[in-house]
Amino acid sequence: MSKLWGGRFEDKSDPAVERFTASISFDQRLWQADIRGSIAWAEALAGAGLLSEAERVQIIAGLQAVADEWEAGIFVLQPGDEDIHTANERRLAEKIGEVAGKLHTGRSRNDQVVTDVRLWLREEIAVLRAALVMLQRVATERAAWSIDLILPGYTHIQRAQPVRFAHWLMAYFWMWQRDRERLDDLSRRMEVCPLGSSALAGTPFAIDRQALAAALGFRAASENSMDAVSDRDFIAEFLAWAALLSIHLSRLAGDLTLWTTAEFGFAGLADAHATGSSIMPQKKNPDPLELARGKAGRLIGDLTALLTTLKGLPLTYNSDLQEDKERLFDAVDTLEATLPVIGAVLAGLRLHPERMAAALSDDLLATDLADYLVRRGIPFRQSHRLVGQAIRRAEAIQVSLRALPPAEYQALSPAFGPDLYEVFDFERSVEQRATIGGTARDAVLEQIRRAGGLLEE
Amino acid sequence: MSKLWGGRFEDKSDPAVERFTASISFDQRLWQADIRGSIAWAEALAGAGLLSEAERVQIIAGLQAVADEWEAGIFVLQPGDEDIHTANERRLAEKIGEVAGKLHTGRSRNDQVVTDVRLWLREEIAVLRAALVMLQRVATERAAWSIDLILPGYTHIQRAQPVRFAHWLMAYFWMWQRDRERLDDLSRRMEVCPLGSSALAGTPFAIDRQALAAALGFRAASENSMDAVSDRDFIAEFLAWAALLSIHLSRLAGDLTLWTTAEFGFAGLADAHATGSSIMPQKKNPDPLELARGKAGRLIGDLTALLTTLKGLPLTYNSDLQEDKERLFDAVDTLEATLPVIGAVLAGLRLHPERMAAALSDDLLATDLADYLVRRGIPFRQSHRLVGQAIRRAEAIQVSLRALPPAEYQALSPAFGPDLYEVFDFERSVEQRATIGGTARDAVLEQIRRAGGLLEE
Amino acid sequence: MSKLWGGRFEDKSDPAVERFTASISFDQRLWQADIRGSIAWAEALAGAGLLSEAERVQIIAGLQAVADEWEAGIFVLQPGDEDIHTANERRLAEKIGEVAGKLHTGRSRNDQVVTDVRLWLREEIAVLRAALVMLQRVATERAAWSIDLILPGYTHIQRAQPVRFAHWLMAYFWMWQRDRERLDDLSRRMEVCPLGSSALAGTPFAIDRQALAAALGFRAASENSMDAVSDRDFIAEFLAWAALLSIHLSRLAGDLTLWTTAEFGFAGLADAHATGSSIMPQKKNPDPLELARGKAGRLIGDLTALLTTLKGLPLTYNSDLQEDKERLFDAVDTLEATLPVIGAVLAGLRLHPERMAAALSDDLLATDLADYLVRRGIPFRQSHRLVGQAIRRAEAIQVSLRALPPAEYQALSPAFGPDLYEVFDFERSVEQRATIGGTARDAVLEQIRRAGGLLEE
Amino acid sequence: MSKLWGGRFEDKSDPAVERFTASISFDQRLWQADIRGSIAWAEALAGAGLLSEAERVQIIAGLQAVADEWEAGIFVLQPGDEDIHTANERRLAEKIGEVAGKLHTGRSRNDQVVTDVRLWLREEIAVLRAALVMLQRVATERAAWSIDLILPGYTHIQRAQPVRFAHWLMAYFWMWQRDRERLDDLSRRMEVCPLGSSALAGTPFAIDRQALAAALGFRAASENSMDAVSDRDFIAEFLAWAALLSIHLSRLAGDLTLWTTAEFGFAGLADAHATGSSIMPQKKNPDPLELARGKAGRLIGDLTALLTTLKGLPLTYNSDLQEDKERLFDAVDTLEATLPVIGAVLAGLRLHPERMAAALSDDLLATDLADYLVRRGIPFRQSHRLVGQAIRRAEAIQVSLRALPPAEYQALSPAFGPDLYEVFDFERSVEQRATIGGTARDAVLEQIRRAGGLLEE
Repeated sequence: MSKLWGGRFEDKSDPAVERFTASISFDQRLWQADIRGSIAWAEALAGAGLLSEAERVQIIAGLQAVADEWEAGIFVLQPGDEDIHTANERRLAEKIGEVAGKLHTGRSRNDQVVTDVRLWLREEIAVLRAALVMLQRVATERAAWSIDLILPGYTHIQRAQPVRFAHWLMAYFWMWQRDRERLDDLSRRMEVCPLGSSALAGTPFAIDRQALAAALGFRAASENSMDAVSDRDFIAEFLAWAALLSIHLSRLAGDLTLWTTAEFGFAGLADAHATGSSIMPQKKNPDPLELARGKAGRLIGDLTALLTTLKGLPLTYNSDLQEDKERLFDAVDTLEATLPVIGAVLAGLRLHPERMAAALSDDLLATDLADYLVRRGIPFRQSHRLVGQAIRRAEAIQVSLRALPPAEYQALSPAFGPDLYEVFDFERSVEQRATIGGTARDAVLEQIRRAGGLLEE
Repeated sequence: MSKLWGGRFEDKSDPAVERFTASISFDQRLWQADIRGSIAWAEALAGAGLLSEAERVQIIAGLQAVADEWEAGIFVLQPGDEDIHTANERRLAEKIGEVAGKLHTGRSRNDQVVTDVRLWLREEIAVLRAALVMLQRVATERAAWSIDLILPGYTHIQRAQPVRFAHWLMAYFWMWQRDRERLDDLSRRMEVCPLGSSALAGTPFAIDRQALAAALGFRAASENSMDAVSDRDFIAEFLAWAALLSIHLSRLAGDLTLWTTAEFGFAGLADAHATGSSIMPQKKNPDPLELARGKAGRLIGDLTALLTTLKGLPLTYNSDLQEDKERLFDAVDTLEATLPVIGAVLAGLRLHPERMAAALSDDLLATDLADYLVRRGIPFRQSHRLVGQAIRRAEAIQVSLRALPPAEYQALSPAFGPDLYEVFDFERSVEQRATIGGTARDAVLEQIRRAGGLLEE
Repeated sequence: MSKLWGGRFEDKSDPAVERFTASISFDQRLWQADIRGSIAWAEALAGAGLLSEAERVQIIAGLQAVADEWEAGIFVLQPGDEDIHTANERRLAEKIGEVAGKLHTGRSRNDQVVTDVRLWLREEIAVLRAALVMLQRVATERAAWSIDLILPGYTHIQRAQPVRFAHWLMAYFWMWQRDRERLDDLSRRMEVCPLGSSALAGTPFAIDRQALAAALGFRAASENSMDAVSDRDFIAEFLAWAALLSIHLSRLAGDLTLWTTAEFGFAGLADAHATGSSIMPQKKNPDPLELARGKAGRLIGDLTALLTTLKGLPLTYNSDLQEDKERLFDAVDTLEATLPVIGAVLAGLRLHPERMAAALSDDLLATDLADYLVRRGIPFRQSHRLVGQAIRRAEAIQVSLRALPPAEYQALSPAFGPDLYEVFDFERSVEQRATIGGTARDAVLEQIRRAGGLLEE
Repeated sequence: MSKLWGGRFEDKSDPAVERFTASISFDQRLWQADIRGSIAWAEALAGAGLLSEAERVQIIAGLQAVADEWEAGIFVLQPGDEDIHTANERRLAEKIGEVAGKLHTGRSRNDQVVTDVRLWLREEIAVLRAALVMLQRVATERAAWSIDLILPGYTHIQRAQPVRFAHWLMAYFWMWQRDRERLDDLSRRMEVCPLGSSALAGTPFAIDRQALAAALGFRAASENSMDAVSDRDFIAEFLAWAALLSIHLSRLAGDLTLWTTAEFGFAGLADAHATGSSIMPQKKNPDPLELARGKAGRLIGDLTALLTTLKGLPLTYNSDLQEDKERLFDAVDTLEATLPVIGAVLAGLRLHPERMAAALSDDLLATDLADYLVRRGIPFRQSHRLVGQAIRRAEAIQVSLRALPPAEYQALSPAFGPDLYEVFDFERSVEQRATIGGTARDAVLEQIRRAGGLLEE
């Protein structure tokens, strides 16, 4: 077959090199964006007087016919189709003849490909944003239903202080809220149209680039053609976003794989979301959570890959940039698969309030005991030390803090009054944390209320 | 020495473990932020009735005295000072006695440290933003002065089309503009105050967290205490920003290390910005550019390090998070050193217009020749092929395109008229690219005008 | 369909979760290794008295029949086939009935999968090793043919000293030699058989694991079952190997993309190995080299991904480990595609001796001039300074070092004799570097001789 | 001050650029290696007749005097000391005068620096190897003492099968054994001496490079000077080694942070190895383990940084390579701090056998129950299903498997005989796994015996 660019070449290509340099195996998924971009370009060429009305109609009809083949799954790739742009133009020529050769006037694959990727990613971002919102919705709803549940909060995976389950769950809501904000920021920044930058120097024809950008739904035309064809910031920014979101998911997995152990037992996965073992009949493994956690590695790898590929490249386009797409596609596919599964797992999570309650041990109230002393005028640093001594004493005589006799407390400090035992009330502890962002009922309900507002936007 | 947290511990610490877990060697640079945060906290405690007016005054004066010691470089670290928070509180107690023990009421190192880092980073972001603006200013000014210079534009480091030097330079302006926008976005997102989240569950005292946030210059108080103490998104986002900026610098280094070769010769570094060789007397090496490029690896490594550290951590605080600071400090220091140097290199760059002109070979106008045919009605795809054949013909008889006789052109296509030779004019080529973002004089001047507007903001 | 592990589960799986957790889409390429492992396992079960002779024969024949289906491309995946192990066992049961259910006795997918991956990777390593040797062979042969060619050697992409082209090429030979050694090391380390480790605790049946390991061609049986099922060191080590090899390729690309510029012009790619532009008819882009360079990012990303996924996983098997395969497959596929292409590019490279010769400028001999003074007793540090002054003087009067008159040299130092001009001989300069590893003809021929020995091993 | 390389430069350096390009702040730790390399080089120059005997003696004595200053901590850096090589040579000249200028004859900083780093790293590798062996020794000894302890083994952090504690511990021994083997491999590969490669083309003087290599304790002289000065494979390989070792440590941390939770409770850290909370008096946090886990991120980042920095660099030396050292130093320092701490934590770990015993629940024997059926002729696949049904039945009537009445078992399959209850014996289960690498006492003792052999090497 003949290449689009073969005029000056004497020798035939080496088939191994052709396979190596071709991107059609993975960039064909851009077909729709490519057709859409070409239709807008044809309109722009017509607007600039480079296509007659008849040519414009013919080309656009031809492009739509090509799109129909893709849609119907009957587009047949040919050996010479090195990428989606070539494939579509080749097919267009088969359908409408030599006039197809006018379509590539004044543009280049350099501006075309990056326009296509932006158009494609815009659609996927909408999908991902909806999936993220769904996840937030699940979190908010479960939080609202479970507002009464109290369990140990952990630092260093050590029991720290009692918290509401709803408070724990809303912590993820806010991570995802930041993810949404970041997605909105990068999405806005991405809405710039490079088409008309041509190979690197700008198109020499009188294309109305602002109208073209608008026709494709972009916010603006790109400001500098050399930057436009070599800029992959939007992909890097997207991959950094994906990596950070995946870390949030991995932390959720960190919590839930703990909670679903026999030892913690605060929750169980629905049968439909767990998997068994090929050899151990009793096993019920939190497979989707572990995979989600493992995929954080994958997404960090995708980010590293792109950043490393970009490092040190002189302006403008270099073929190294062709490596951008597979990492981007991998990240999008990974998240589009993961988010709904995590949403389902969270929605289906079976809580075990009795195990949560059983884990509420007195040591979780040690800080409350110190705060009790603070309220009686003992500086916190001293209170902390006194309670530490009470804990050692309780361990020595093998009782819980609650069971340590008043005399023992008094021996440590006269500030311990008989009312100290009122501290040993988990609900009370939680309710004292009533400032903004605290774990008291009203503070958590306030979070849920604000979350509702953010979900309605 | 005694630990702040030692009450319940029986055995002494292992000194090797103490050294291993201590962060004072690197986090002491947070001293100012830590004092500032503590002063605001003392005010908040007083507001909540937990400090008397006398205590408030005493504590704040004490903190200021500690700050004075840091400022004067006479603060002496003690063996037990595991981190900056401990060191400052220990010194405060030495100065004002037991009342110092009231300062840590209702807060924890978990919310304190992340407040400190946010306060610290805010200052550094201002420094970095100014350095970035300075770099943009240098680019814009040099672009304005050099508007007449034309040189080859490259794709694949192969000569592609003529472009204005100013256009090339402005490509970097726009990269840095995106960097600025990203910095503004992350900066705004970072302006949330975690103080008052305490260990993880929220403070049990009636702290006015909104007033506290405002006192520290934050936009808002954090919404969820469990998230607040374990969230390092802002550092991850900052490191991703730093990595991407460093990639832009590495691409500039990619261009300029090429340009300053004997072979390209478009530019030379000022003597003050180059280094010599210990053995080869003739050498003049673009050291700062190479280092800037190499440091892109370092910054990508810092980002990878933090993301990997965060992966899979259950809520809330885990000591793994202590690893966040050295990566952050390294990134900030690296960029604060690099940006001014790159600015100086760019400002001092010596251009060699004669070498640029000499590199303007006719093949850079091959696309213009094809466009000439397009304007005469030949579809672009066919024009491209015809020009490819002209190039092969010219190579065969060893002349440049400009010197290929009319008869040769005519033999290829009757569409080649005698006016075809008008194409061989680099200025004309550049001037035809006059749409937004093109390399024509007016289009570049328009970029510079817009840039000026953005710099005045 | 029914799961292999479904006995204790009540609810049906969620199809989205099933898709998410299934690995069959990518692990089916392990079919051959999986069959091979299962046949060896069946033999081992028979050896331990767990299969009768008839059962053994029946199972092995069945497995071979399944293999035949894969071989013929007629194996049909079923909805329940979550992975290759499940698929093969399901098909075996369809072929031979309930006795198929005896095959999984005493093993688990945990030991099975990692045995399969080791078997598979062993084959691919042989392919990669051969490709690497071929690349070394091309380098050695071209070096031998081109022993006379001299061109500038570069540091900082600045002309430094003259070197033989063959010397430059052999630099890559030695990088690849280290790659081969590393591959041999990791390959030997990988030759350990985990089969018989079962889920994590070891098989409870009297399997002769040493015989089993030997039957599968392994050097030894694994020493600890808990380690065996969760160890992915061999993949990490392989990916680190792949990343480093890709860096060597990227450096070659760095050199050759420079050399094939119009400005350097030392070499050109064969038409068959270059690609054109969709818009610029004159372009001939070194696409395969740029892609090879870009893929270094991809391979570094694959490594980062796996390492990050492994971080912090408690023993033993966790599903996160399922993420190992796609990164491994990607690295293997990438290198298997890249190495032969780079070999072809290198073999087809067209050298331009006249451009190399033209680039041999006198400044490349500045060190030789300093060494001339050294041989006349001037300490090197002083010689270096004197030559630096000569260079400045030559620049001032705009001549080359060779054309700087004797009087000028004498004015700098009386140690400059009339024979100083003998230094200006590139062949002589190169020939003086005759120690081991130097660029003199004999030293390079010695490298080639040694290389030949290493290639014959 | 004057630069070593300043001869041809007219303008003074920019101080900001000087600071930016200087490496003395971090490479001064190479002082000993640098002196050692210089002494060997002086000997080599004398051997080649480039130094008289008197000069040789003078230079070596001078170098030793410089070393004495470093040793005594009285070496004073001067503003012009851009790196350790410059600093040492400057000081040498101050001590012995102009003859110092002969030392740099025939070498370059390019070969000098990489020789220094290899010499330095060799020493650190010895330290790291010893620390690794100590860790293995601790593991082996604790394993031997604790051979009787049985606890649940986990997959997916779900209880899987009972294993010996000693078996779990030896899993780490074997990871570290692979680390040792990898360290030995890279250490051997690193033992190549680049000195005498000079700037890039080899030294022009008659240096006996083999004798020089031997004098510095290297295995061989490097084979190609261009490769020698730009090769950083040995650092990349070391950093990959460090990253993988850190992953092993992070997995240990993963296990032990779980085990020391209130919920698992299998072990506790010695007070000396845990830290407390600034606010929660009851806390005892496994800080060293969490930091070790977090540092895996750091080491993966160091590796990524170096690999990314190396990507795409043309031959030979580029200043980007200066970025190698800080990443290397960071990795060495990190591991030298971490390994002994982890050794101490492991040695001091307090085991809680009663908690381990309490966690041995019947479901851990489900596979044994299936194997019981296998021994009675039921194909494993069917046995697995039958036991799965028994588990569901037991859950339904809320008893453990052991308490499920015989009739229930019989109802599922007549193959369940009255002896089935013998299965419910954890010791018996463990003892059945007696093949190589299994968790039976003798198999674990055999591991310990082999480990002892490997430790004596």
